[in-house]
Amino acid sequence: MALSEFSLIDRYFSRSVKQTGCQLGVGDDCALLTVEQGMQLAVSMDTLVENVHFLAGVDPRALGYKSLAVSLSDLAAMGAEPRYVTLALTLPELEENWLRSFSDGFFQIAEHYHVDLIGGDTTRGPLSITVQAHGVVPRGQALLRCGAQVGDLIYVTGMIGDAGLALKSQLGEIQSCAQIQLDRLNTPEPRVQAGLALRKLASACIDISDGLLADLSHILKASQVGAVIELAKLPVAESVLGYQRQTRQPGFALTAGDDYELCFTIPASHVTDIEAVSQAWPYPCTWIGRIDDSSELSVLNDGEQIEIASNGYQHFS
Amino acid sequence: MALSEFSLIDRYFSRSVKQTGCQLGVGDDCALLTVEQGMQLAVSMDTLVENVHFLAGVDPRALGYKSLAVSLSDLAAMGAEPRYVTLALTLPELEENWLRSFSDGFFQIAEHYHVDLIGGDTTRGPLSITVQAHGVVPRGQALLRCGAQVGDLIYVTGMIGDAGLALKSQLGEIQSCAQIQLDRLNTPEPRVQAGLALRKLASACIDISDGLLADLSHILKASQVGAVIELAKLPVAESVLGYQRQTRQPGFALTAGDDYELCFTIPASHVTDIEAVSQAWPYPCTWIGRIDDSSELSVLNDGEQIEIASNGYQHFS
Repeated sequence: MALSEFSLIDRYFSRSVKQTGCQLGVGDDCALLTVEQGMQLAVSMDTLVENVHFLAGVDPRALGYKSLAVSLSDLAAMGAEPRYVTLALTLPELEENWLRSFSDGFFQIAEHYHVDLIGGDTTRGPLSITVQAHGVVPRGQALLRCGAQVGDLIYVTGMIGDAGLALKSQLGEIQSCAQIQLDRLNTPEPRVQAGLALRKLASACIDISDGLLADLSHILKASQVGAVIELAKLPVAESVLGYQRQTRQPGFALTAGDDYELCFTIPASHVTDIEAVSQAWPYPCTWIGRIDDSSELSVLNDGEQIEIASNGYQHFS
Repeated sequence: MALSEFSLIDRYFSRSVKQTGCQLGVGDDCALLTVEQGMQLAVSMDTLVENVHFLAGVDPRALGYKSLAVSLSDLAAMGAEPRYVTLALTLPELEENWLRSFSDGFFQIAEHYHVDLIGGDTTRGPLSITVQAHGVVPRGQALLRCGAQVGDLIYVTGMIGDAGLALKSQLGEIQSCAQIQLDRLNTPEPRVQAGLALRKLASACIDISDGLLADLSHILKASQVGAVIELAKLPVAESVLGYQRQTRQPGFALTAGDDYELCFTIPASHVTDIEAVSQAWPYPCTWIGRIDDSSELSVLNDGEQIEIASNGYQHFS
């Protein structure tokens, strides 16, 4: 029997709202929220399109998970605590098995981060998913891109290049890669815990979904500074290093993209604090370079500056 | 020269933010908002997909306008005052003329309603637009679907069926229609003024984009009541009445959809107030029926109940 839009919403996307700041969720013309005094609402919107951001036939459970994960990564980069999400789901047809798996993946990460689905839209069309994540941050404590100062140290969370290698594997360009790398491509873990801890420590922060080099450049531009990073310091898995050597692409991990890690800067006086708080994170936190007054982003390999070909993922290049 | 995603955003979608409640707009991982004490944030998300919600080759200026208009209509239906919007734009390619026209139409209505574009995403893919509108409403004054009481009177703003007739014309199913009907399809005017005025008068309210019959049914279901509406009272243009007679579809205007009007209920004690405030609206406000305890929605034609075939637009039927 054909499932209507409304029974679809009822069956797969209506779950009770738990956050007390939401007075009305799915089911009216709008959802209604309040934001506590002294807090700012941080909002971020991301679209994933079939055959652009994910391959046709991808596991719908992983896709549901990733749809929300990429937006939570933006909240993490602002130091915001996740609260609510809206979901616009465009589907070529209603397949119940697909919808069940997609919503299972979506709610798995939503529940893990105590995020309520409060509204959205379902439409017919080429498969695409737009999510807006809503979080809160104490007023004035959000991590912006524009605060990096000359002399600040540059750090990155997690490992870079894993998702890029996994994509090569899924596209058949390399024979295989580790399961952990496939997981990092398909079900990335937003660095919410790090973002919250960085509120009073970082001078600037960004998520590096377009690639470390491109996204660090956004910090430099917004802060009107330059930087030097050292290739040898980058947190890159042995298999990614092997791929880089084999293909003579020393900057692959810097530009491959789809790494939902945070790149941030801190004043040198906060090094001890970062080393202390990052002990609690279940992922590395690595010092990779330093902010300078050069107005350029230089990459050093054994002390020599190298040129990196591509400057990150661009949708229309 | 190819336009990158970032220069696209800079050129067409970065305008200065005017609402004082927005502390950070386009250009970081998130936008940052505050919501005044005593106010609720109302949010609504809508997607428009090419060849589903609009025809290929539609005027991009009208499309930009309508993309925001349909979401402002949801804010109007809640009695919320428009403030901010986020825009996820998925485009098959970057055509500057198209982008210029689209953004012109989008900002035309945005500026008219003092709405700031504060964030979003641009991606490559089949043409589709997702908008989230954000408004504010004093706490407890939002117009919900669930407040209709037995004995309340049912009203609708504007004219119904015009957009439906215009679509028939654009599809070549009828020879022509009036320009005003094409305008109501392509550049609908959200009933923001009515929504604000109804805050303290209406017991329930909804926008009737899926068709009056379907959307009034949502009020009845949420309020656990029934209703009778009278065909002869409906605000329907002579040309739409002619189409209905000719095609023997007396319920066409009730089900055609794409009417961004408000349907609302008021206690009988508020009739004088409605008649007074609606004088200021540049569109009609028409009494069409009454809430009853029947748990059904009946349509009367010359005192006799008639059956209406379709029950409004459904994406997957």
